[in-house]
Amino acid sequence: MPETKLNSYERIDDLQTPNGYRLIQNPEWFCFGVDAVLLADFAAHTIKPNSHILDMCTGNGIIPILLCEKTKAEKITGIEIQQKVAEMAQRSVLLNDLEGRVSVVLGDLNDADGIFGKSVFDAVCCNPPYKENHGGLKNQNDEMTIARHEILCNLEGIIKSAERVLKPSGKLYLIHRPERLADIFCIMREHKIEPKRLRMVHPAPEKTATMVLVEGAKHGRPKLFLEPPLYVHDADGNYTDEIERIYGRKSNE
Amino acid sequence: MPETKLNSYERIDDLQTPNGYRLIQNPEWFCFGVDAVLLADFAAHTIKPNSHILDMCTGNGIIPILLCEKTKAEKITGIEIQQKVAEMAQRSVLLNDLEGRVSVVLGDLNDADGIFGKSVFDAVCCNPPYKENHGGLKNQNDEMTIARHEILCNLEGIIKSAERVLKPSGKLYLIHRPERLADIFCIMREHKIEPKRLRMVHPAPEKTATMVLVEGAKHGRPKLFLEPPLYVHDADGNYTDEIERIYGRKSNE
Repeated sequence: MPETKLNSYERIDDLQTPNGYRLIQNPEWFCFGVDAVLLADFAAHTIKPNSHILDMCTGNGIIPILLCEKTKAEKITGIEIQQKVAEMAQRSVLLNDLEGRVSVVLGDLNDADGIFGKSVFDAVCCNPPYKENHGGLKNQNDEMTIARHEILCNLEGIIKSAERVLKPSGKLYLIHRPERLADIFCIMREHKIEPKRLRMVHPAPEKTATMVLVEGAKHGRPKLFLEPPLYVHDADGNYTDEIERIYGRKSNE
Repeated sequence: MPETKLNSYERIDDLQTPNGYRLIQNPEWFCFGVDAVLLADFAAHTIKPNSHILDMCTGNGIIPILLCEKTKAEKITGIEIQQKVAEMAQRSVLLNDLEGRVSVVLGDLNDADGIFGKSVFDAVCCNPPYKENHGGLKNQNDEMTIARHEILCNLEGIIKSAERVLKPSGKLYLIHRPERLADIFCIMREHKIEPKRLRMVHPAPEKTATMVLVEGAKHGRPKLFLEPPLYVHDADGNYTDEIERIYGRKSNE
């Protein structure tokens, strides 16, 4: 493997997964969090072998790389609008010798059907910017601000675009804040993606959920399946066994 | 207090609340469950003093009577479509000397605005039939079947009718099955009732939620507030302290 060239501020993190995948990150921009790991795992439960997947807002490429580990998907494409970030993600793909399964495309997710065609993906996932943009944001061109706020894309754009590129019955996987759950359900349904699976993620039992995992199916029939709550920590403040398994640190029982 | 006349199969249950309210029930039809108690408590948290409240699908009148205990609402009206059930509820009102605060009206909730007028209630609550009616139901005239299945009303009818009778900013409180959560949010929003508060009810920690409590506000702004999970039993199978408090068996700490 050729030596990986790192830009200033960049570092290589070992993802501690069975395949030993690694990820280039730039802490000046953002580093992946538990949300990306949870979304990849949530999606992996229902992604079928040989699927073609689009990861919107792919950022440093964490989700496509985790999906290589967790699924038998044939082809995973990450789309990222920020040139420098997409270029870094591409270097992580090469670093892991994943160029046969993963591609990173520089582009606007709102144009995904123009770039990839209509009804071409079996699944779309997205760990989007959580915060609404009510104007007045400083540093609108800053990588971290763009990753966190709905500046270059928003929830409706993601869902609309996902519907266009998904095959019929194709799945959309999202992670988001609970305060957007009504938005997610209503915008999905408006765009013919039916919410089918919901999991609430709690920092600990007794604590209010801080994230929601949602799976929708294009042209699906209405009936939501609620999964058991996912607790990140137990009452003693340690990671739960399930989180350890999701991170790949414990074998499945 | 005059002696209460009981019909065959009827019994009087002590609600074990501070005011000593009692309820006439007919186990041949249905008896109230934890859902009615949870809905009344959930609603009571945001019902303002002097409110006028409509309880749809009031059945044996459990929710109006509990709201007399838990709120300072001025007037609570229960609407019930089954004549025999409404008559039984009315006898429970008299049994508790609540005729100054509670009335039971025999009627179809879908005609609520025709009966009561438009934009007249501060709050509407409803513990509706949970099960969809896909046809083929036996005993469509049976009180228990009507209480459990969407035969004489359905979720959309409830929400549409609630919107018509609610004042602007008025609240709609519902309890339902999680599988209908997307329906609830989408139908609410379609009818200008914005989902504002959500609480998931779990039989126990680690168990999947089996009920959802939802508060919507007529003409409200989008932003959902998720409350902490409500566990009915603890890990040992006993009622949690919160459930004991909701049932009125422990004083608030």
